[in-house]
Amino acid sequence: MTVTVVSALVRPLIEPHLPEWVEARFYKSVDEMLEFAPHAEIGWFDLEHKPPMLEAIRRAEKLKWLNSIYAGLDFLPFDLLRQRGTIITNGAGINALTIAEYVVMGMLTIAKGYREVVRAQDRREWLLASPGRRELAGSKALLLGYGAIGKLVEARLTAFDVAVTKVRRSPGPDTLGPNDWRARLGEFDWIVLAVPATPDTDAMIGKAELAAMKPNAVLLNVARGAVVDQDALIAALSEKRIEAALLDVTTPEPLPADSPLWSLPNAHVTMHLSGRATEKMFERSAERFVTNIHRWGRGEPVEPRFDLDLGY
Amino acid sequence: MTVTVVSALVRPLIEPHLPEWVEARFYKSVDEMLEFAPHAEIGWFDLEHKPPMLEAIRRAEKLKWLNSIYAGLDFLPFDLLRQRGTIITNGAGINALTIAEYVVMGMLTIAKGYREVVRAQDRREWLLASPGRRELAGSKALLLGYGAIGKLVEARLTAFDVAVTKVRRSPGPDTLGPNDWRARLGEFDWIVLAVPATPDTDAMIGKAELAAMKPNAVLLNVARGAVVDQDALIAALSEKRIEAALLDVTTPEPLPADSPLWSLPNAHVTMHLSGRATEKMFERSAERFVTNIHRWGRGEPVEPRFDLDLGY
Repeated sequence: MTVTVVSALVRPLIEPHLPEWVEARFYKSVDEMLEFAPHAEIGWFDLEHKPPMLEAIRRAEKLKWLNSIYAGLDFLPFDLLRQRGTIITNGAGINALTIAEYVVMGMLTIAKGYREVVRAQDRREWLLASPGRRELAGSKALLLGYGAIGKLVEARLTAFDVAVTKVRRSPGPDTLGPNDWRARLGEFDWIVLAVPATPDTDAMIGKAELAAMKPNAVLLNVARGAVVDQDALIAALSEKRIEAALLDVTTPEPLPADSPLWSLPNAHVTMHLSGRATEKMFERSAERFVTNIHRWGRGEPVEPRFDLDLGY
Repeated sequence: MTVTVVSALVRPLIEPHLPEWVEARFYKSVDEMLEFAPHAEIGWFDLEHKPPMLEAIRRAEKLKWLNSIYAGLDFLPFDLLRQRGTIITNGAGINALTIAEYVVMGMLTIAKGYREVVRAQDRREWLLASPGRRELAGSKALLLGYGAIGKLVEARLTAFDVAVTKVRRSPGPDTLGPNDWRARLGEFDWIVLAVPATPDTDAMIGKAELAAMKPNAVLLNVARGAVVDQDALIAALSEKRIEAALLDVTTPEPLPADSPLWSLPNAHVTMHLSGRATEKMFERSAERFVTNIHRWGRGEPVEPRFDLDLGY
């Protein structure tokens, strides 16, 4: 029997589908999670609050496979897990659909100045002119990151007649290489960041990149706060050198109350909600976990694998 | 020479392209418009404020062709124009693209509870849960009105994996007939009104139709206020019998400051801005007018024709 430690929250979604070789222990509290962890060969220890989650992982000395609902796992103890040889599956792609919908919503709300419409309704004021008069149709988007999110964003934007250029290593139509996109930044109306958080993507949008953008360029970040040099972005927004930024992610999170991003008229802060704007996250994660448990039992690879060396 | 009376605002867009047989008179004021009107064989007299526009049309006794940027022309003196045999071209389709973008924006913002995100940013509050957790993907939309707007909405929603059913006379895939849709109303997550304003569509969504909708149905009206029985809608929203309504159009417009629609938490008032959220309206109208002038000169039909009997 393989001891498998999972939150009681997903019990109804997974218990009916578990194979016989699984000895499932469902924790109802952080204390139970910490108590069960040392016995776990398979573990799913996600918590919003990271310290007890990390403590459970440290205690899980028998852990062969760690599962998580999160796509970004840069907070994990990489050295410890590498040393133990723990296999890690992450939530890559689980929330891709809702994030892609959020990206298009962000572009549309900025294009139409919808935030001002909300504020006008709150004032009971009938606006006579639209606060935003851009169309998505005929515009150009640069997509940095062509994973699950990027592909879904591309399909949606294409239906809006947006010309989408993506950045990827393998050449193809409407594609720029990793060393080519910087020189072409000035061509795009929208720059969408959906890259993984790795040393390579750290501060990939800094002062020089912001300076190369068009004055009416809009930056959307659904990757990680660290992908953008936030001070450089605040300066660019303050001086209106680009039109706007939608920041689903910031440095740090939560954004401190005194950050200028809250009140800059061209900064749109969406509080890392893009991936949470769905009712199906647990359902999809549980389904994937069950599929993987059966693969594990057959000796097949579980997926998607989080690579401790690549960091995604 | 054919006297053609047009606003000076579009002069730079059309003058370079006019054929020799046109004697263009560009009015710079309402007074000039009224002065030139009696000579006009071709006239384009649009004004936000309708009484002087109607006065110009009354004075234009020689008018053979009346052009307008507006799609809905229910305010025109139908009897007078019919009697004169005036041909009318309207703005049908001119703003269809930006209206279609607005419809999808409305659906996304309601799905994700984006209005609450705007308000939270204004309070500098980092939300931990998304105020809306619906996905467009996998949902079902009913499209009432399958003209230029409806077709563009359909194409965009299909890319979001929304199953779109349209109502039209001619049968086809994913289509319901004009007498069939009421019995199926309870199947849809989104009901989009993009019909023309005619006696047929007057109050087509009333108490019975609202009662037939799902509790989480969202109604979006980009047609005309009169298409919905507004009192019945206010009652349904107040009692949360449907989830929300996005009203780009209301009865009357502007919406009076004491209307409950302003403050109902599930009413989204967008102030007839959907068609105005573009910079290209004048450009597209002027292009179309120039094309039509050349057709007129060759004795070809101008389009799109506004039909005084159908009312669209």
